[in-house]
Amino acid sequence: MKTLIVYAHPEPNSLNGSLKDLAITTLENAGHEVQVSDLYAMNWKAVVESGDYGPAASNPLRVARDSGRAFDSGTLTPDVRAEQAKLLWADTIIFQFPLWWYTMPAILKGWVDRVFTFHFAYGVGEHSATRYGERFGEGTLSGKRALLSVTAGGPESHYSARGINGPIDDLLFPIQHGILFYPGIAVLPPFVLYGSDRIGAEDYPDLAKAWEQRLLTLDSTEPIAFRRQNFGDYEIPSLQLRQGLEPLGRRGFGLHTH
Amino acid sequence: MKTLIVYAHPEPNSLNGSLKDLAITTLENAGHEVQVSDLYAMNWKAVVESGDYGPAASNPLRVARDSGRAFDSGTLTPDVRAEQAKLLWADTIIFQFPLWWYTMPAILKGWVDRVFTFHFAYGVGEHSATRYGERFGEGTLSGKRALLSVTAGGPESHYSARGINGPIDDLLFPIQHGILFYPGIAVLPPFVLYGSDRIGAEDYPDLAKAWEQRLLTLDSTEPIAFRRQNFGDYEIPSLQLRQGLEPLGRRGFGLHTH
Repeated sequence: MKTLIVYAHPEPNSLNGSLKDLAITTLENAGHEVQVSDLYAMNWKAVVESGDYGPAASNPLRVARDSGRAFDSGTLTPDVRAEQAKLLWADTIIFQFPLWWYTMPAILKGWVDRVFTFHFAYGVGEHSATRYGERFGEGTLSGKRALLSVTAGGPESHYSARGINGPIDDLLFPIQHGILFYPGIAVLPPFVLYGSDRIGAEDYPDLAKAWEQRLLTLDSTEPIAFRRQNFGDYEIPSLQLRQGLEPLGRRGFGLHTH
Repeated sequence: MKTLIVYAHPEPNSLNGSLKDLAITTLENAGHEVQVSDLYAMNWKAVVESGDYGPAASNPLRVARDSGRAFDSGTLTPDVRAEQAKLLWADTIIFQFPLWWYTMPAILKGWVDRVFTFHFAYGVGEHSATRYGERFGEGTLSGKRALLSVTAGGPESHYSARGINGPIDDLLFPIQHGILFYPGIAVLPPFVLYGSDRIGAEDYPDLAKAWEQRLLTLDSTEPIAFRRQNFGDYEIPSLQLRQGLEPLGRRGFGLHTH
């Protein structure tokens, strides 16, 4: 396995830092190759701006079109090209981050905003009245697998089916489906640690064991069964799920899973 | 009305820039006071780091606790204190941004991550076995109203109840409920423009009229009826919605709306 770990936490001596370190040693000891994008250590620039697109940037700036032109002409900035190369190299991508305000920290969102350019992660394949691109199960990153490893401050019940925060699967849907499945990545069920502010040294051995288990079984873990766009489940061109495909009573984000 | 507009787009000559400009003139012409946080023009720092908490930062850094200590001691950085002051000044907050990868651009997420500190936006009120803070309808920013004004690249059908992206209300829930309602802000229904990449000059007058209408009726618009945490709808301490409160068949994020 060739694994890229994208890690976003400002403190190396944090639970997130420990989980990242454990992932590296566990995977390497099992004979896998590992690359790490430690966004804080890299001083990753989080903000999209015209300088990202070099000579391809137009005035006024148009983010989608200009990022696609820079991608096509190989003139994206070296930091972005390096991340795209890591994604193409990897067969497995692990994202390690804390849930801040129910989603990823800004530095990681900025990694997505800058690395997932037009023609690389979106705007891939024919876009016409009868076809709306290769996406949601197809695309540049198809054949790869990803896993979110996240820590959440609140207790698990707050993220349960009736919990006040909303169900964790729904909170992660815009990332797992909207960011990862979109360019073709198969997404494994997430590894979530709740009540992270109350996790002490005495709790760590059990958590570490559970994380190692997940890491050593990535190959055999079934991905989330998101529906693919171009294989008959969606009407064209509305891209609405065809009537009657879902289990009775299923609605919302859950419609888009088999 | 005292309105704060938080605006996040790198290009002033964009649809988002035009909507922001129109909001300023429309509200000012109607006699309202307006402040603008133009995050790109301010070169807003998007990334949380120990330097944000000055002498209150500990080693190892603990983001929640350290941000609360810096807030309590008035030692947050001036840029963050200025934004908190604007929020306290405003009675209405408008967020103008493009949906990038189904959520806000990194620069705006970084505004949330840095401005919504512990003891200001979360960790407010008693936290015990019988009470889990003043949040979701109560808190520092209660009594204020907010509105998301967003542009989306895809057509509206892709964001409909059965659309492949997921329903727009669910995509915005982590922001509207998890970020805004959390510290007490009432959230008005969003203003969403779809197919933004295909909007031309000929379409703009109608869009501008619709946006002006929304701006001039903010006072009389009913907020989204999110359930408040501490008024009987949720079990303590699990904070799960009590059985039987929801309309038949309602589930997922929709449970948390009356």
